[in-house]
Amino acid sequence: MFIIWIYGYRFELSESCAKSPVSMSLNLRWSYLDHNATTPVWGEMIQEIPKWLNSFGNPSSIHQSGRSPKNIIREARKSIADFLRVSPLEIIFNSGASEGNNTVIKGFYESLISGRIPAERNEFMCSLVEHPSVIKSYKFIESKGLKVHWIPVSQKGAIDLAFFKEKLSSKIGLVSVMGANNETGNIFPIKKMAQEAHEVGAFFHCDCVQLIGKTLIDFLDLNVDYATFSGHKFYALKGTGFLYVKKNSPYQNLIDGGAQERSRRGGTENTLGIASLGYMVEVISNQQEKIDEIENLRNKLEAIILNRVDGVKITGIENPRLVNTSHMTLEGIDGETLLMNLDLEGFHVSTGAACSSGNPEPSPVLLNMGFTRDQAQSSLRVSLGWNSRYEEIERFSLALEKIIIRLREIKHGQKYFNN
Amino acid sequence: MFIIWIYGYRFELSESCAKSPVSMSLNLRWSYLDHNATTPVWGEMIQEIPKWLNSFGNPSSIHQSGRSPKNIIREARKSIADFLRVSPLEIIFNSGASEGNNTVIKGFYESLISGRIPAERNEFMCSLVEHPSVIKSYKFIESKGLKVHWIPVSQKGAIDLAFFKEKLSSKIGLVSVMGANNETGNIFPIKKMAQEAHEVGAFFHCDCVQLIGKTLIDFLDLNVDYATFSGHKFYALKGTGFLYVKKNSPYQNLIDGGAQERSRRGGTENTLGIASLGYMVEVISNQQEKIDEIENLRNKLEAIILNRVDGVKITGIENPRLVNTSHMTLEGIDGETLLMNLDLEGFHVSTGAACSSGNPEPSPVLLNMGFTRDQAQSSLRVSLGWNSRYEEIERFSLALEKIIIRLREIKHGQKYFNN
Repeated sequence: MFIIWIYGYRFELSESCAKSPVSMSLNLRWSYLDHNATTPVWGEMIQEIPKWLNSFGNPSSIHQSGRSPKNIIREARKSIADFLRVSPLEIIFNSGASEGNNTVIKGFYESLISGRIPAERNEFMCSLVEHPSVIKSYKFIESKGLKVHWIPVSQKGAIDLAFFKEKLSSKIGLVSVMGANNETGNIFPIKKMAQEAHEVGAFFHCDCVQLIGKTLIDFLDLNVDYATFSGHKFYALKGTGFLYVKKNSPYQNLIDGGAQERSRRGGTENTLGIASLGYMVEVISNQQEKIDEIENLRNKLEAIILNRVDGVKITGIENPRLVNTSHMTLEGIDGETLLMNLDLEGFHVSTGAACSSGNPEPSPVLLNMGFTRDQAQSSLRVSLGWNSRYEEIERFSLALEKIIIRLREIKHGQKYFNN
Repeated sequence: MFIIWIYGYRFELSESCAKSPVSMSLNLRWSYLDHNATTPVWGEMIQEIPKWLNSFGNPSSIHQSGRSPKNIIREARKSIADFLRVSPLEIIFNSGASEGNNTVIKGFYESLISGRIPAERNEFMCSLVEHPSVIKSYKFIESKGLKVHWIPVSQKGAIDLAFFKEKLSSKIGLVSVMGANNETGNIFPIKKMAQEAHEVGAFFHCDCVQLIGKTLIDFLDLNVDYATFSGHKFYALKGTGFLYVKKNSPYQNLIDGGAQERSRRGGTENTLGIASLGYMVEVISNQQEKIDEIENLRNKLEAIILNRVDGVKITGIENPRLVNTSHMTLEGIDGETLLMNLDLEGFHVSTGAACSSGNPEPSPVLLNMGFTRDQAQSSLRVSLGWNSRYEEIERFSLALEKIIIRLREIKHGQKYFNN
């Protein structure tokens, strides 16, 4: 008996099958290399789901049907608090980081206009490469006539610390900078920035969505005041996440309602989703050796591609990056065409953020980093997961090389034809 | 082979087991009679979950991993739209009705202050027995200095239509009245009220959470502008729901972010939860004969209790009610003590709304209906589901009678002792 694990699924193969790797690789119909967009649900966890669903009661009910899901939630909250080394009271379960980001930023604005934050702290700061849920929440604040300072990020993936330092003052209420960018993978110096924000009395919010399971960062050491997390970025279920709010930080509900989450977030709890969050932080705690493996694999991937394909530039390689992410621009290639060709060959990658199909606009993140529209539209993002394999990387590189050669030939041919 | 279904679970019993009903009833460890708080996850649906989880991609991704969950969402949206007889474009998936209610009410306020609604429409109306997510959203509006008219509801469960009519004017922007109350089960005349609101140019919002699966109401015929729904009230998953927004009604995002839900609700979609919503509305469409069965059962339950127990008053029986709900006040009985005693006997019921344990306050809904604190604290809510059985009702009534006699004896004894 030979056992392999694919995305946490256990496959038991007979010896004859295991000895014939050709048939194994033929059975892999496709390779998922888009883990920054979302992750597969962790296979071993799926067998827990019927048990969790059996605890179906309303956690707010005081009878036995309610106490059982209440315990599930309590345990998940404890696991997450232990993982982050914070208090369980500082964790608020919600539907994911988009809700979390809106809650923090719009809630801070509400606290300001209702007088719970000194009126002179009415300016904000935010990086130009944040998630749309952050950017749009600050656009909402701008629409109210308040000042938002947009912190630039260089083409090499470095956040403009001089700008940040210059604009920091006792007028700043809240600063939002993500832990790592979803498109380039660049990691920002959160600990340092949070410390500097605190020195002028500002609060610091960090979108930590991309950090979980891809870094060894000690969350508590970052010392931020607010942090947002989404389950579906670390192999838990979609539509579920949590918000960290440091004790005594200003807070205002986005969703008012019942007494759930100590009256900080109304709505009957997503027991199943919350259970999956608790389960997965436990798995992550035991998977830290994966970080090195993935980095190794990503570096190999980049080496192969740089070796085989001309006109490739890795984005943000000059600065710290997530171990799993490789973002590149490919001279003369249309990213969306490339993506569709790779899709036909069974490789699922991205041109940047998970973009809505039918939206031909280049990534605002890349444009804001100073890339031209052409460059932004020629980009490719590969993001590896805990179950990515060298064999996938190798097949992917071969396919990429083949497709790029073909696309460049077509383009060259068209030019020739048009002339 | 003998087959029984319990909460949609299929149980296959041998003939000898099926012929021995005593052992069957002994195997039922407990009875869940609290379906207005939440419903069990539909058993037949659980087998679909692994398949849905397999479609794990980000629905916004354009590769194959994204197209598969995108199809799941499209089909669920279509099923729900067909069920309500509305356009799929009028359905917005979210985390449930608390989010939905906050979105409608706070969003309407935002539309008003940003000038997208005429400034003179700055008054609101809302019933006094709404869900906390509605009440608190209007408290938020009141805190901004705007006028909210609170519509009374009588002790007999009738909404004050004279008050409603009197306050209706061209100053009213939005009216919120729930389809049916979660505690008493009373159904309100939404169609008539929406029509009257429309006559003065006001918009109408209906919290429809308790209607689904418990009424035969034709949603389209109600002709409301906004309606909110939660999956976990009709055997789908928790943490998922949908919002109906009639075409051309004012709308402002509560959660800004990506382009999901046509940019009306940010956040990666809860594919699994959405699939469960679509699945369950299909089941409901085929279960309409259940409505009569449940009503029959509820009426039998009330007849038995009224026959056996003294000092019982059924709440709201003078007005239309949900077929599954029985709310009663029990003279001289403390509801929470009763509930705990019933819990020990394996019966899961409620004193009203799913209250947070440790909160000894009587239900605000009952107080607002004019009940005294003592009356409100002596209340019991039984809410039946599609799988409730006559045998449960009978056992429950016996247990209730026994416990009430005991509690009254203790109370009487204490009085005697204290004298």
